[in-house]
Amino acid sequence: MTTLEHRARPLDVSAAEQDYAAALERDAAALRRIVDLTQRVDSNHPLFLEVAERLDTLSERLENPVDTVTETVRNPGWRHDPVSGVENAIALPLVLEFEDDRTVRAEFEFGLPYQGPNAFVHGGISAMVLDHVLSAAVPPGDVPVVTAQLTIRYHRPVPLFVPVTMVARETDRDGRKVWATGELAVDGKVAVSAEGLFIEKKLKSAQ
Amino acid sequence: MTTLEHRARPLDVSAAEQDYAAALERDAAALRRIVDLTQRVDSNHPLFLEVAERLDTLSERLENPVDTVTETVRNPGWRHDPVSGVENAIALPLVLEFEDDRTVRAEFEFGLPYQGPNAFVHGGISAMVLDHVLSAAVPPGDVPVVTAQLTIRYHRPVPLFVPVTMVARETDRDGRKVWATGELAVDGKVAVSAEGLFIEKKLKSAQ
Repeated sequence: MTTLEHRARPLDVSAAEQDYAAALERDAAALRRIVDLTQRVDSNHPLFLEVAERLDTLSERLENPVDTVTETVRNPGWRHDPVSGVENAIALPLVLEFEDDRTVRAEFEFGLPYQGPNAFVHGGISAMVLDHVLSAAVPPGDVPVVTAQLTIRYHRPVPLFVPVTMVARETDRDGRKVWATGELAVDGKVAVSAEGLFIEKKLKSAQ
Repeated sequence: MTTLEHRARPLDVSAAEQDYAAALERDAAALRRIVDLTQRVDSNHPLFLEVAERLDTLSERLENPVDTVTETVRNPGWRHDPVSGVENAIALPLVLEFEDDRTVRAEFEFGLPYQGPNAFVHGGISAMVLDHVLSAAVPPGDVPVVTAQLTIRYHRPVPLFVPVTMVARETDRDGRKVWATGELAVDGKVAVSAEGLFIEKKLKSAQ
């Protein structure tokens, strides 16, 4: 199996830019840890009253040079998207492994930031992750592929803090249409399943 | 229109606990700002090389007392869920407004942490938010209501940094089944639509 990093084009950047990418990855991991900690505290903790102040001081130093950026283009999307992105503190991050060209798998656990009902994963988070993994199972050819429709079925709630397995595979192609299915399973039982229809975008003819 | 805070039970806690909830809300807002900033920087910034270290120092001070917590129960779910939760840095946070008991609306913008394709929202994020808003349009009666199935249709990509309107409403009830639909629209045009089936949980008979 290969990870998405191997499947995606390698980072073709200078050594300085690679250092920078590594720093962003460390920053995101450190942020993710604090995001998680702020969910885990269940009793008054005096430090919490000063956390915002410390974070704001850091923000103010970062704020100035970046106020006009409206898209992140510095690295490939899989470095910063909200599901797999190691540079994004919102992302789990999910590590995708490819069993073959059209079957993808991920194993992970959900922590408290992803909680909906007490002790269980928010249903929208399961939908988000399934969209991402199904899309990854549909390899782009000469033209980009976009999601047209996604159906999610909830069979049983997904607990936090247990190993979760997710598998998705491309199931069919017909012209520009591609279908994929996938499941999120806990302890060998399917908890959430998904079916997706993807469309190859039309290439605009050169005029 | 009333917001979800008005619809949900008010925070029935002591003044000290209310101060604490307010501090958590400020912390999450400060974290959200840094999560966003780390996505917006598009050139080398020397501070980034020390951000992780500063955050880790903060984490280490917070880490000790909280390592065994496995669910967030201190406040109602809408305070800390990953979509509407003002105490959760992952959440937008989305503010829900109720037009009536079974119609809910939200207006907001997506920033860089929610990016999928360059300059557009990740499809899984749209699915996550629609799941949340549709669920909110289905008011629980005497028994809890859970999502059984959700279908998302993607009509056009959703740009970052533009006003987005989301509306959802309950459409039908039949026994324990409840249906709802909703749309995410940009500039008056539907970009993503959703249809959900929800089930009222059976009450276990007392034995």
